[in-house]
Amino acid sequence: MGAGLLGDGCVFCAIARGQAAASIVFEDEWVIAFMDLQPVTPGHLLVIPKSHAEGLEDLQDDIGMRVWAVAHRLGRALRLSGLRCEGVNLFLADGEAAFQEVFHVHLHVFPRFKGDPFRIEADWRVHERRQLDETATAVRRGIAALDVLPR
Amino acid sequence: MGAGLLGDGCVFCAIARGQAAASIVFEDEWVIAFMDLQPVTPGHLLVIPKSHAEGLEDLQDDIGMRVWAVAHRLGRALRLSGLRCEGVNLFLADGEAAFQEVFHVHLHVFPRFKGDPFRIEADWRVHERRQLDETATAVRRGIAALDVLPR
Ligand SMILES: [Zn+2]
Ligand SMILES: [Zn+2]
Repeated sequence: MGAGLLGDGCVFCAIARGQAAASIVFEDEWVIAFMDLQPVTPGHLLVIPKSHAEGLEDLQDDIGMRVWAVAHRLGRALRLSGLRCEGVNLFLADGEAAFQEVFHVHLHVFPRFKGDPFRIEADWRVHERRQLDETATAVRRGIAALDVLPR
Repeated sequence: MGAGLLGDGCVFCAIARGQAAASIVFEDEWVIAFMDLQPVTPGHLLVIPKSHAEGLEDLQDDIGMRVWAVAHRLGRALRLSGLRCEGVNLFLADGEAAFQEVFHVHLHVFPRFKGDPFRIEADWRVHERRQLDETATAVRRGIAALDVLPR
């Protein structure tokens, strides 16, 4: 799928290799963080693994935890940056149906403030316990299926 | 702030202690995952630390990584659950300005599919490199400030 194991033609792999322009804020052996070209608010960052993974399915567990750990710190750093930041969102889109556009896994970290242009729309109706319990049963089936699958 | 160290009056602490109803799908020593009462799509989960933390500022690094690790697995489990799931979003709101409503840190994990009601709105204009570099400088200042602060 997508860009392949080595990430040929993947723009985020090119950034990770230093072969494409990016405004980098942090880098270590496993991950790199840089400014999103289309920021929701000034300070909008992306944290990515340096090794190509398309999404949650092929992202190694330990690398994923490193992506999170860096995003956690960067979320806290945004509040100390002098940029307008009254709150922080983390967002990850896994798959086209989830609004993923670049198929190299990336965790968004962006500052929020009163009156900023970011909005979420959904149907926020409260569901009944019976429905929620049925859904929970399905999810537990999924967890069980995961446990017997090879990684 | 908020619910206090022991999370008195915090509904998610009550769930973690087994003192409030919840449709639980996973639980270990550190975290618990259960169905959101107002699901964006059927299968919408929340992963929370069992010990009270309001947001990213007071969430311990290692507990945060455990929250992530469980969310990562649950995101993959949703695809095997039989629920409609063509993609997955992870979302975290830290602070009222970021749409946080329950002040016990929680990571949303929800399935997505073509035509579902979840929408994001923002101003997606591409910013100039000069602007992005200036913002990156501010973020690096924030990172440096973080490094000298006691946790
Ligand atoms: Zn790549
Ligand atoms: Zn709590």
